[in-house]
Amino acid sequence: MPRVSQERLDARRRQILDAAARCFARNGFHATSMQDVLKEADLSAGAVYRYFTGKEELIAAIVGEVLDRVRGAFEEAAAQSPPPPPDVLIGAVLRRILHGQPSLGETEESLYPRLMVQVWGETLRNPELHAILVEGFVTVRQPWVRIVEGYQDAGMMRADIPALSVARTMVALAQGFAAQYALFGDVPIQVVELGVKALTSMGDPEARD
Amino acid sequence: MPRVSQERLDARRRQILDAAARCFARNGFHATSMQDVLKEADLSAGAVYRYFTGKEELIAAIVGEVLDRVRGAFEEAAAQSPPPPPDVLIGAVLRRILHGQPSLGETEESLYPRLMVQVWGETLRNPELHAILVEGFVTVRQPWVRIVEGYQDAGMMRADIPALSVARTMVALAQGFAAQYALFGDVPIQVVELGVKALTSMGDPEARD
Repeated sequence: MPRVSQERLDARRRQILDAAARCFARNGFHATSMQDVLKEADLSAGAVYRYFTGKEELIAAIVGEVLDRVRGAFEEAAAQSPPPPPDVLIGAVLRRILHGQPSLGETEESLYPRLMVQVWGETLRNPELHAILVEGFVTVRQPWVRIVEGYQDAGMMRADIPALSVARTMVALAQGFAAQYALFGDVPIQVVELGVKALTSMGDPEARD
Repeated sequence: MPRVSQERLDARRRQILDAAARCFARNGFHATSMQDVLKEADLSAGAVYRYFTGKEELIAAIVGEVLDRVRGAFEEAAAQSPPPPPDVLIGAVLRRILHGQPSLGETEESLYPRLMVQVWGETLRNPELHAILVEGFVTVRQPWVRIVEGYQDAGMMRADIPALSVARTMVALAQGFAAQYALFGDVPIQVVELGVKALTSMGDPEARD
């Protein structure tokens, strides 16, 4: 029964990764020991080392998963048709990042933003992980640039500002909100949706003159 | 000559802190050893341990300085009179955070955003540092809320959205831009200023109907 066996292997691997993610979200990568991960996963060293050679391999796996998920969230949100206004777009990204990862925590609070902050710190010191992050950002910003160009073509936004600057700014909004969620606890996504709605409501003072 | 002596003590303390900040910005708090700091400061262990009992005390000092500086930047930017529009306000905060810290790096790039990302990660695992961060955020958001209320009172922004949500969103913009600067290198502040200008230019679609 090789199929059952593979499923079991995958489930065990998942169990280890989820335990590691919880530890890393709570305590960062470097202050977490393999002992902490074993305890959190409720597994023996032998069981864990069959899957991962050590902490560095676990860190790389978790960083890869977090970056994949964040990139996926930005891509999926941008694939909506017709492209939604900025507040809806940013809310959609954040919902995809914060929800649907129930295995990460026992509380209502998503541990994903904390993990993101730790991943950012780790990519700053690890060139290989940094390259994955940069590649993901380049991939993600293309569809966001196209959405901004859509706003501009439709006359919804002034067209004399580079679409890339606006796309980067919208990505920064999502990143900054995720940081606030990590740092100050369970902030409702509605806060940033309303905030963006209010900012976009200001209109162009130069056009008003 | 006690005064000269005190100045010398202060300068030596500063030299150690600047070296530690460079190490932490490059490599994070936990992957940096006291040996790294000694080497970066070009000082002996004896000289350094006269000022700091160890790495934990250095980390606390650096985190305290970073949080002070960021809080100061948000407060000073909000103290401008009359209150500037959002793009100018956010640009002013970022200029205060990124510039005027020449001692941190040899390159043009400000190491401050990197340090901020590392500080965020550290506050997630250290309750005392986290309390300082939260207190700073509470202090900072008051003047930002007042600025938003000013926009709303002047009819520049729809008034049916809580000012706190808008203030948090503007703070998130500055945080997200700082994260991008740390992660993707020397991004001109003009990018986010133009991006915010474009977003605020959209106007209120409900008002247009």
